[in-house]
Parts: sequence; structure tokens; C-alpha cells
Amino acid sequence: MQPVYHRSLILSLCVILLTACGGESAGPAAPAATAPTPIAQTFKWKMVTTWPPNFPIFQEGVERFANELREMSGGRLDIQVFAGGELVPALQSFDAVSQGTVQMGHGAAYYWAGKIPAAQFFTAVPFGMNAQGMNAWFYGGGGNELWAELYEPYGLVPLPMGNTGVQMGGWFNKKIESVSDLQGLKMRIPGLGGKVLAKAGGTPVLLAGGEIYTALERGTIDATEWVGPYHDERLGLYRAAKYYYYPGWHEPGTALELIINAEAWASLPADLQLMVKTAARGTSLWMFAEFESQNLKALETLKNQYNVEVLRFPPDVLQEMKRLARETLDEEAAKNEQFNEVYQAYQTFRANNDAWNAISESAYADALAQ
Amino acid sequence: MQPVYHRSLILSLCVILLTACGGESAGPAAPAATAPTPIAQTFKWKMVTTWPPNFPIFQEGVERFANELREMSGGRLDIQVFAGGELVPALQSFDAVSQGTVQMGHGAAYYWAGKIPAAQFFTAVPFGMNAQGMNAWFYGGGGNELWAELYEPYGLVPLPMGNTGVQMGGWFNKKIESVSDLQGLKMRIPGLGGKVLAKAGGTPVLLAGGEIYTALERGTIDATEWVGPYHDERLGLYRAAKYYYYPGWHEPGTALELIINAEAWASLPADLQLMVKTAARGTSLWMFAEFESQNLKALETLKNQYNVEVLRFPPDVLQEMKRLARETLDEEAAKNEQFNEVYQAYQTFRANNDAWNAISESAYADALAQ
Repeated sequence: MQPVYHRSLILSLCVILLTACGGESAGPAAPAATAPTPIAQTFKWKMVTTWPPNFPIFQEGVERFANELREMSGGRLDIQVFAGGELVPALQSFDAVSQGTVQMGHGAAYYWAGKIPAAQFFTAVPFGMNAQGMNAWFYGGGGNELWAELYEPYGLVPLPMGNTGVQMGGWFNKKIESVSDLQGLKMRIPGLGGKVLAKAGGTPVLLAGGEIYTALERGTIDATEWVGPYHDERLGLYRAAKYYYYPGWHEPGTALELIINAEAWASLPADLQLMVKTAARGTSLWMFAEFESQNLKALETLKNQYNVEVLRFPPDVLQEMKRLARETLDEEAAKNEQFNEVYQAYQTFRANNDAWNAISESAYADALAQ
Repeated sequence: MQPVYHRSLILSLCVILLTACGGESAGPAAPAATAPTPIAQTFKWKMVTTWPPNFPIFQEGVERFANELREMSGGRLDIQVFAGGELVPALQSFDAVSQGTVQMGHGAAYYWAGKIPAAQFFTAVPFGMNAQGMNAWFYGGGGNELWAELYEPYGLVPLPMGNTGVQMGGWFNKKIESVSDLQGLKMRIPGLGGKVLAKAGGTPVLLAGGEIYTALERGTIDATEWVGPYHDERLGLYRAAKYYYYPGWHEPGTALELIINAEAWASLPADLQLMVKTAARGTSLWMFAEFESQNLKALETLKNQYNVEVLRFPPDVLQEMKRLARETLDEEAAKNEQFNEVYQAYQTFRANNDAWNAISESAYADALAQ
């Protein structure tokens, strides 16, 4: 004989089962036996960057980051990424994230120097710290906390995400043999690096990435900096100028930034916040490793296939630029109190970092070179 | 009238409901509306390390890693971490993970040199690549793939997780002014570094961390290497020897490893595998940044508070050790074909890496020092 059951009993059973599997019908969640119940909501976010579409490593790394978050969260954090200009112009991404038009952005803090001069310390400053020093400052030296304070009034949460390493000094259509060769030199070099060049008698020119090649090729400018061998090769700069100088004193370890709208951030459950932080750190490592491994291959190609002359800036040029860089930072600090505060914190950390670096990485590099 | 239902219908309903919530009763899961259904199982794993309990940065970083995974996965990947000796002796962790006694381990690949001589390239070799170079090799130069091949016969999946940066050269109870001062020197220095010292006429001694201080203080050994200022200060080595030498030519960028039992790895759903990979990269960045920021503080303390004499190995000593290091690696390669294969791959990548480093990080460090 088969027992029979009433509808009410079945409904009860359904309720028990649905409760056990965590679910409202809107979006069932996963309460593991050992953990607090994650919030079931799905977050469909938009993210804008300052990079051209398909820009290798930069935009590529951001796409990887979004994919990782989508997969790790089982689709609960679903971020659609837009390159510069696809949704808002590249340099309006700060405002778009600040105003909540979109929830996330990726770029470089020095792009916002007009609004927040002190932001430049969180990307790179001339003769500043390299990537290793920047990461130590961010994670263990109070850098991230200072950065968060700086962006708090704009409703933004910043996190480091990527670093180019030491950039190249740039492409020149004449040799730089002394400081006097910089007199009257028209060079595409933005930000503080440009101010240092101006002090040395040069003329800094602002040009977007897409305009550089033609300007250099036609002689509208005499020189340009861009990124490093990998990106410079792709822009074809070796066809427009003959001499490729190092090191990139103006950007010795350019950190990239993730910015998150503070309200959107607060709305994320703790597990998704942690995924974002972890993925940002993971992406930082990946980007930096990728810059290194691609740059070393591209350097070979530039030298051996395109016969580029790779030259070191003469010591007296570097010494003079270093002196002028210090002067520039001091002047900026005198003009803006917030800049000065971050400058002091940066310099304090940096003095100890230099002392440690001198007996670790630098001393080892010397031992290898001997 | 109330309709009645048969047991078979109820069972069908239960199956449908349970299927919809992704679940075996063991651990219900969260199918987000937009994503593939993650597997509902909860993974309770054990992880053993080669580190002492509470060993700063090393063990600390592993605990952070396990906590991140637990939180990100909502408890679905729940890893209990054991320090060396708590579950198995530190140096049996490779076997424990290989045999599936536990699912994960953390340590350094050169601990397994007796079994797999080539594993040493995935930690550090004398006068080898620094942390930046190692990461570029791992992620962009085929290093990780080579490492995976090497561990495959042992049923292990390796991933890089952490790097100490350039270590210190060690503590000496006499000054090292020429190569002849190494004659007869009894120094605690393991692995390939020890072999290089032996070639220079010294006597490498093997001692566990806990035995070093007493041996040095009592004069059983004349010198020891350990890690860097932060860990060396905590071990009190400045009380047992007067001279602190740099750079750590024997370990110029010591990479740490995560090992995962291959069967356990294959049983993880894709989202949890990705969390492990992402968290390992994130932990790598955190550990390296933490070593840097703690070392620079500890260096200050050692110099200013404990009046430690921080000295550079003389150039001729470093040159001789470099020559002997090359000789040592060549000899090991002649003895073991697998070592030779990895050595060739490492050297090929490294040649390009050195060329790039010379015009980027090294050239910039020179410019700063001028």
C-alpha cells in the first residue's frame, strides 16, 4: 500500500528544502555550513579605464581582473569593462566613478594632478621610488592609508593595481651629450617630468598616445617618452627617432590604480570586497611580471632587428635632472599643503627604503655587474 | 477537497528542488542567475608548512592566504594550516602533500634538492635572478610551466607564493677582507650556497633555525646566514656576531612555493581553483612588500640601536664567489640531466633579463646613487 500525503505537507517540505538551499527565488545564495551566509544579490557593475581598447598589459590586465572576479564570484560580481572613450572620455573616468555613473575605474593617479596635486606620489615622481619601493610603501609603509584619505572627499576608494617598472627615458632624434643639448628640446613628456625638463631649458609638449608617432616623425617634436620597449615597439617609435635613452628618471616605477565608488563599495558584501582586494593584488603582480617579460623580449627585437641605438643618459645630465626634480617637488610642496604632507610621508619612508635598497637590490646588481 | 499525492511524486519534487539548489545535502551552493552553478561541496583541507609556528611573514602569509580563501569562498574552501612539526615534520611536507595525507603545503622548492636537484632553480641559486626576475620568469617566461612538469611525477601542482627579496650575506665573527678569510670558515649555509663556500675553502654546516643562535654564540660556527634584517633581528643574531655582511649572493631573490596535491586540485571546481591561483598571486605580492617594509625598519634598528657593523663583501670576494657559483652549477648540470635542462632554460631567460635589468632597474639605481 502506498501512503498518501497532503498538499500542506508538501509545501512545508518545499519551504524546508528551499531554506536549506539558501534561497529566495531572486537569486539563491550559498550558506556553507561553516560560514556566514553571503548576500544573494548580483552586482552588475561598469568599469571605465584611461587606456585605449586592447592596450596590451594595461587594458588587458583590467579585462583579466574583471574575468577573475566574475568567475570567482560565480557571476555575483559581473563587471563590464570599457576602454577610454567607449563610455566616457579617458580623462573623465575619475569623475564618472566619483559621481557613481559607473562603479569602478582603472588608470594612473597622476592624471588627476589638476584636481589633486598630491595624487602624483601614488603613480610616480621624477627620481622617486621604483616598483619594489612603491609596493612596500603601499602595503607596509602607510601609503595605501594615505591614498584612501586623499580620495575620501571624492567618494572614491583607491587600490594599487599594476606597475610598469622603470620606464625608458625616451626616443630622441639627436644625441644628448650634455645638459645644454636639452636647451630648446621639444619633448612629449607630461606632468612633473615635463616641469623638470622645462627647468633644464626644454619645452614639454602634451600629446595623446595616438598623436605621438606622427609628431615625432614630422619633427613637430624632437623627442618623446612613452612606456618601455614593448609598448614603444608597438607604437613604431623606432621608425621615427634613432636614439633610445635610458633610464626613465621621470617615471621610475609607475603604479597604476583601481578606483571604486565608495557607496558602491560599501554595498558589496564582505566576501566580494575581499575578492576585489585579492584580485587587485594578484593583477598587480601579473602586470608587473608581464611588463618585465615582454620588455626584455622587445628590447632584443629593437636592438637586433631594428638596429636601435640604446644609450645611457650621461651622468652629468642625470645629476642635473635629479637636482631639478628635487627643486620641482619642493616648489610644488610650497604651493599646496596637501602635496607637502604626502611629500613628507613619502620622503620619510623613502629614506629608509633607499638605505635598505643600497645594501640589498643595488648592492646585488653591482655584484652581478662586476 | 484536498488533492492527495503519492510518495513518488514528492520524491521527484525533492530531486528537482535539490537539483535547482545545486546540492548534495553535504553543502548547499549558490547558483547566481547569470553564472554556471558552482559545485556545492565544501572542501575541508589540511595544509602543512616548513615554517615554525608564528614565523613572521612566512607562516603569517600562509595563514592570511587560508583566511582569504575561506572568506572569499563563503567557507566552501576551508583550509586548516599547520606549521612545521605540528602535523608532520617540516621537511616531510613534500611527501605528505604528494601522498595526499594533506592537500596543500608551503615551503621552498630547494628543500627538495635531494629528490629533485632541479627544484633549486625555483627558489634561488647563487648569483641567480632577483625577485623581479623570478616573477617575470614564472609568469611570463615559461618558469611556471617548467616547474609544473618537474612536480607532475610526484602528483603535485606547484605555484609561486612569496619572495624574500635579496637576503643578507650573513653574520660573521670576523671581518672578511679577502678570499683567504673564507679558508676554514665554519658557516651555517645550506644548499648550493654551501657548495660554493666549500669550493672557496670554507666548511658549510647544516643547522635548523632553532640551533643557529647558540652555535654562533658558543663559537661552534664562525658565521651564519639567515634571512634579512627583520628575521635576523628577531633571532637575536646581533648578540652573537659583530659583522653583518651584504649582499646575499647565495639567495638573491628567494621564491617560496605553494604545493597542491594533484588529485585534490582536480577535484576543486573551477571557481575555487581560480580563487587559489589569485590568492597565491596576491599573497606573493603581500609577502614581498612586507619583507621590504619590515626589513628597512629592522635595518635601522640594527644599525642605530644595536650598533651592528653593516659591511659589504669586498669586490674580489664577490667575484670569486660568482666564478665558483658558475662552476658549481655547471658541475651539478653535468651530474643530472633534469637539472641541466632547467639550468639551460633559466640561463636563456636570464640573459635577456640581465640585459633589460641593466638598462632599467640597475641603471636607475646607479642614477639615484650618483
